Amino acid sequence: MTYCLSLLCKQGAVFLSDSRTSAGMDNITIHPKMRLYSSPGERVICLMTSGNLSLTQTVAALIDEDSGRAVKEPGFPHLLNQPTMYETARYVGLKIRQVESLDRNALERDRYSFDINILVGGQVIGSPPEIFRVYPQGNTMHADHDSPFLQIGEFKYGKPILDRGFTYGTPLAEAVKFGVLSLEATMKSNVSVGTPFDIFCYEKDTFEVKYRSRLEEGDPYMRTVRKKWQDGLSKLVAQMPCLVFQGVETQPGQRME
Amino acid sequence: MTYCLSLLCKQGAVFLSDSRTSAGMDNITIHPKMRLYSSPGERVICLMTSGNLSLTQTVAALIDEDSGRAVKEPGFPHLLNQPTMYETARYVGLKIRQVESLDRNALERDRYSFDINILVGGQVIGSPPEIFRVYPQGNTMHADHDSPFLQIGEFKYGKPILDRGFTYGTPLAEAVKFGVLSLEATMKSNVSVGTPFDIFCYEKDTFEVKYRSRLEEGDPYMRTVRKKWQDGLSKLVAQMPCLVFQGVETQPGQRME
Repeated sequence: MTYCLSLLCKQGAVFLSDSRTSAGMDNITIHPKMRLYSSPGERVICLMTSGNLSLTQTVAALIDEDSGRAVKEPGFPHLLNQPTMYETARYVGLKIRQVESLDRNALERDRYSFDINILVGGQVIGSPPEIFRVYPQGNTMHADHDSPFLQIGEFKYGKPILDRGFTYGTPLAEAVKFGVLSLEATMKSNVSVGTPFDIFCYEKDTFEVKYRSRLEEGDPYMRTVRKKWQDGLSKLVAQMPCLVFQGVETQPGQRME
Repeated sequence: MTYCLSLLCKQGAVFLSDSRTSAGMDNITIHPKMRLYSSPGERVICLMTSGNLSLTQTVAALIDEDSGRAVKEPGFPHLLNQPTMYETARYVGLKIRQVESLDRNALERDRYSFDINILVGGQVIGSPPEIFRVYPQGNTMHADHDSPFLQIGEFKYGKPILDRGFTYGTPLAEAVKFGVLSLEATMKSNVSVGTPFDIFCYEKDTFEVKYRSRLEEGDPYMRTVRKKWQDGLSKLVAQMPCLVFQGVETQPGQRME
């Protein structure tokens, strides 16, 4: 299973992904799902993928082929010469459609679904940072100020913490914490999502890959966050008032015996 | 959509359900999903249902028919004369199989799935409290000390809070809080799960329905819990340490300009 998350903030954008891939519970391997591309000073693009590993790798291969070809044929369309983030996301959608024409029939003949979703985000000079989701059909949608995050894969366990507190105005370093907590919650509730976690924090208008990290299972930061979060939540639950049941003066479990 | 949750504790068991039923986003109505049955001093049984409303109502009707018949024919098998909680859950499974033979073919002919799940819990004199899940096939499974809760319906959003802190040893009044927070998280992340919430807290060896409540949307308890929880979580996130990115001395978003 996969969980990838991108958070859009006033100060930039944060990208997080797990790196566990499973073909059944007895076949779990580690593959990075985050890919970073940049033309320093001009653009930074982050891709995160979920779905059939063969399909996501094929999209990446097609992107790399185009980049190689553009070296010899200046102006050939590739990931890093699109005029906007929107066009960049549509370009990724075109690559998905190429893979679709290559593999979909063969997959569906054996009852595998054509399953691929990609988060594309970053900044192209002249526009603010943006994040997009590209669907298996190649069409796109983007986050905005009111709905400032996008998730693909196993998204439900990690959504409540974001719904509670993350907004477009959240400072960038705080957004990283929300992202880590969202991944940690998902890992706790679904064993097939797991470390290492890849994290990239992009600061608006820097046009460089500066804040990047990989958190392994035993990482002291992860251990500290997990412990503080667990202890803090337990205390917080204890601080909630007790429900007073209608027509009953006692609390359950408080009988004198 | 539906979310029903039952929590098994040393001191008893807690049952919670939402009451929103949807046949498409333009057709959301309120139906209770919790049903309580008791023979005071001898047994208390709580049923909570998810799936196709017609199917769950038909199961309830068959249960009521059996109870009616047992009044005239003493010893006729019904919900409240099974020797154990296990037999009670299997009895409910038999009712599901009866509905299956009534309706499954007609539903599947029009591509509706035979979708029904039931949580059955409570206590029968002579045994400790137990909670069971009954599947659409009529078979059952029960919670135990290591996995002390069962969920049906839209379960993922409300699972992280339980995974963090709820255990078999959690006091009964605290278990109610965990349950309310789990429902609240689900409601926050999925609009099709909503108030009123039905709550029943069963205290071990009482064999009576004593702690029972219905929380409506504007309920002051819900409002207080929501506010305290939201504020507390925000503070807790702020208290987490910042991630120190490898090879970088600054924090994202902290540049001096």
